[in-house]
Amino acid sequence: MAQKQTDTISRLITEISKLPGIGRKSAQRIAYHLLTHPASNAENLAQAIIDAKGSAKICSICANLSHSDPCPICASEKRDHTLVCVVQDAKDIITIERSHCFQGVYHVLGGSISPLQGIGARDLRIDKLIARVRQGAKEVIFATALTPDGENTAVYISGLLAPLNVKMSRIATGMPVGSDLEYTDEETVAGAITSRRQL
Amino acid sequence: MAQKQTDTISRLITEISKLPGIGRKSAQRIAYHLLTHPASNAENLAQAIIDAKGSAKICSICANLSHSDPCPICASEKRDHTLVCVVQDAKDIITIERSHCFQGVYHVLGGSISPLQGIGARDLRIDKLIARVRQGAKEVIFATALTPDGENTAVYISGLLAPLNVKMSRIATGMPVGSDLEYTDEETVAGAITSRRQL
Repeated sequence: MAQKQTDTISRLITEISKLPGIGRKSAQRIAYHLLTHPASNAENLAQAIIDAKGSAKICSICANLSHSDPCPICASEKRDHTLVCVVQDAKDIITIERSHCFQGVYHVLGGSISPLQGIGARDLRIDKLIARVRQGAKEVIFATALTPDGENTAVYISGLLAPLNVKMSRIATGMPVGSDLEYTDEETVAGAITSRRQL
Repeated sequence: MAQKQTDTISRLITEISKLPGIGRKSAQRIAYHLLTHPASNAENLAQAIIDAKGSAKICSICANLSHSDPCPICASEKRDHTLVCVVQDAKDIITIERSHCFQGVYHVLGGSISPLQGIGARDLRIDKLIARVRQGAKEVIFATALTPDGENTAVYISGLLAPLNVKMSRIATGMPVGSDLEYTDEETVAGAITSRRQL
């Protein structure tokens, strides 16, 4: 009995440490927080996980995560469905939507081509993107990460789309707004100088 | 309907961001991880929270968190019940137990005296500690944090225990094992030099 119940605490720590960005020490801290703070906290979290998991749907068009299929963006008549922004993950959509600068639709790849992590082109939703472009996209914006894997993914897919005669673009590299030259890495500075705008 | 279900995702993000050390961005990343990875992950976590919350008990003697009351340490005949180690939180017990260097019992205060956070002596389990010492402790080791709050708490409680004629000690300050002078803060170095051991 004693042993069995200790295990529920260890199991909670193990489950928490499986979350992205959470190490063993943080998992332990979180588990003790959940177990020693008022009951409502832990149960609210457990319920929120169950509810969200039960109601979240992956859009069959763009693979966005939302409440409905198709997602509100794909279903909206106000969006420009000929302008497709390609992102790695569904959470990238939130980031772009918050900028309020994009009125097109999205296409979630589900990652980037990463030989080191064993992720190849076949693991991504590239065929669906090609099908969407064939169905009438005018421009594809590659908003994959500004990392080697993200760059390679954009280059690889743009090669596949080239014969389809669609306009393609890549989000700009440059200095983050509000940043200081002193604290910016050289590659970013180099990109910012190379891509300088005429005033 | 659409709005309602988006809200389950937002609510999950909100609940996750209430956890210690998790900001809004990390909470978003964790929520998307839970919702886009195989179903078992999220449900295992929810179930682990419910199970642990349901079976975890706070020891009525030392306030340790475990499966039983009294906890296995307080219930053990192998431990020295006259040697009491005072810690701030139940999770500190795990850390000390892992060092395998302590065979006494613990007393969890439930925090440290912190005027800035509005935590006073009355909020801590100090009366219970005094009662335990009266019942026959021979030595009290203060293992509260090596921070101003942790130090003040140890000094305050040692003042209360002084009339009870019990031996009192404080864990040693010094250089962490494996650390380098170059990367150690001055106060730690000062403590290490002051508390130097004769060879």
